[in-house]
Amino acid sequence: MDITSLQNPRVKHLVKLREDKKQRQKDGVILVEGYDELTLALACGYKPITLLTAPELVSQTLTVPNAENLILSRAVFEKISYRDNPDGLLGVFAMPAHTLADLTLSEAPLVIVAESVEKPGNLGAILRTADAAHVDAVLVCDPRVDVWNPNVIRASRGAVFAVPVVEVRSPEALSWLKEGRMRVLAATPSAETLYTSVKMTDPLAIAVGTEDEGLTDFWMQNADLRVKIPMAGKVNSLNVSIATALMTFEAVRQRSA
Amino acid sequence: MDITSLQNPRVKHLVKLREDKKQRQKDGVILVEGYDELTLALACGYKPITLLTAPELVSQTLTVPNAENLILSRAVFEKISYRDNPDGLLGVFAMPAHTLADLTLSEAPLVIVAESVEKPGNLGAILRTADAAHVDAVLVCDPRVDVWNPNVIRASRGAVFAVPVVEVRSPEALSWLKEGRMRVLAATPSAETLYTSVKMTDPLAIAVGTEDEGLTDFWMQNADLRVKIPMAGKVNSLNVSIATALMTFEAVRQRSA
Repeated sequence: MDITSLQNPRVKHLVKLREDKKQRQKDGVILVEGYDELTLALACGYKPITLLTAPELVSQTLTVPNAENLILSRAVFEKISYRDNPDGLLGVFAMPAHTLADLTLSEAPLVIVAESVEKPGNLGAILRTADAAHVDAVLVCDPRVDVWNPNVIRASRGAVFAVPVVEVRSPEALSWLKEGRMRVLAATPSAETLYTSVKMTDPLAIAVGTEDEGLTDFWMQNADLRVKIPMAGKVNSLNVSIATALMTFEAVRQRSA
Repeated sequence: MDITSLQNPRVKHLVKLREDKKQRQKDGVILVEGYDELTLALACGYKPITLLTAPELVSQTLTVPNAENLILSRAVFEKISYRDNPDGLLGVFAMPAHTLADLTLSEAPLVIVAESVEKPGNLGAILRTADAAHVDAVLVCDPRVDVWNPNVIRASRGAVFAVPVVEVRSPEALSWLKEGRMRVLAATPSAETLYTSVKMTDPLAIAVGTEDEGLTDFWMQNADLRVKIPMAGKVNSLNVSIATALMTFEAVRQRSA
């Protein structure tokens, strides 16, 4: 057992990393908890700097060569963990820093642009959808939530590692899309055109904004086309991750037809 | 000002109603907080028994004739509220008790069957989708979350009042669907058939299960057809509210074509 004391400075620092985005950015690290998320991160080529294991909690063990492997007592692990029922595995990874230049695109790229996403749960669900639909990239523009927030990693079920995701400012994202000759489709309830009546087989970027305010003027004005999802109810507000999924899977449908 | 003391027994009881599902069931009431949710509930024909208002917090006021209107101090309201930034309005309503017999169906009904939903956020998102797609009913079967949980009402943005929603046991739901000659479409990753290749214009029920376990054997065996959403990624797990939305809006697309 390497650490059994709750007062150990290493433990205190790990708790700080969990709680404090600025500390994670300062150290340039992210925390990945849980067997499923860790195996996916490993399968996607990410390697932990440190792997924490609490033998009293694990049902499935992991060994990572060339990483610092630390064995913790149950109490210490539970103090560091951000889960209610931790499975005894947590890795500290270098913060992935993807840029637009790193992206490899398919012949007719399909890209999701998520502007100013606020909730970890919504960003996580968008990343799961992006993975299932095998999009070329997710551009997270001017986000209000950190992509590498532990709750995003968890809500994405690890899809954040499987999908090429780039945090980028909106003007740079737009320039890059234009260079790649992708049409920008802006989702907005005020549009006339239905999303299902637009051809989505050419290079395409699907842009979505916040639930309450939608896309900013920047994306609305620079979009090649504005489309809507039909609404026939009384509330008529879809969750942003659902609107994203409907448009993305309409592209999948058209492309497989 | 009717109530200013945090020790008032009425205040204590309201806090208990917020926290305790059993107390809500015993009293046969639900709590609806916030201007948007309240106006939607009113517009859908629901009337509060009691309307609580904190004048120090409200930006938009509401008056409901034939209801008990109580004016509270800010401190008292904040104690009762389940929101971080309450807008000073909260209504106590009789618990809606819809049954299958109450439902009015269109000529070619579209119904969502959600089995064993666990998270208030997912049920709320499903109800928002159901409203936007104007489905005939949502049958919530053997739920692990109470439909009238304050967090469901909130996550649904009030759509829970706009959509005919019935809590019902699975066997009764199935009998009712069969009587109505609706085909049952079970969503499962193990199916061969794509959801987009099935005709959805006839009377139809779309059945979804939990994210981790999917539908139970009961629905899998009694379904008329099993369909899948194509998955081309590494994680390949969609949020249950997203899977529901994709299938529901595919029906909308086919029905409007």
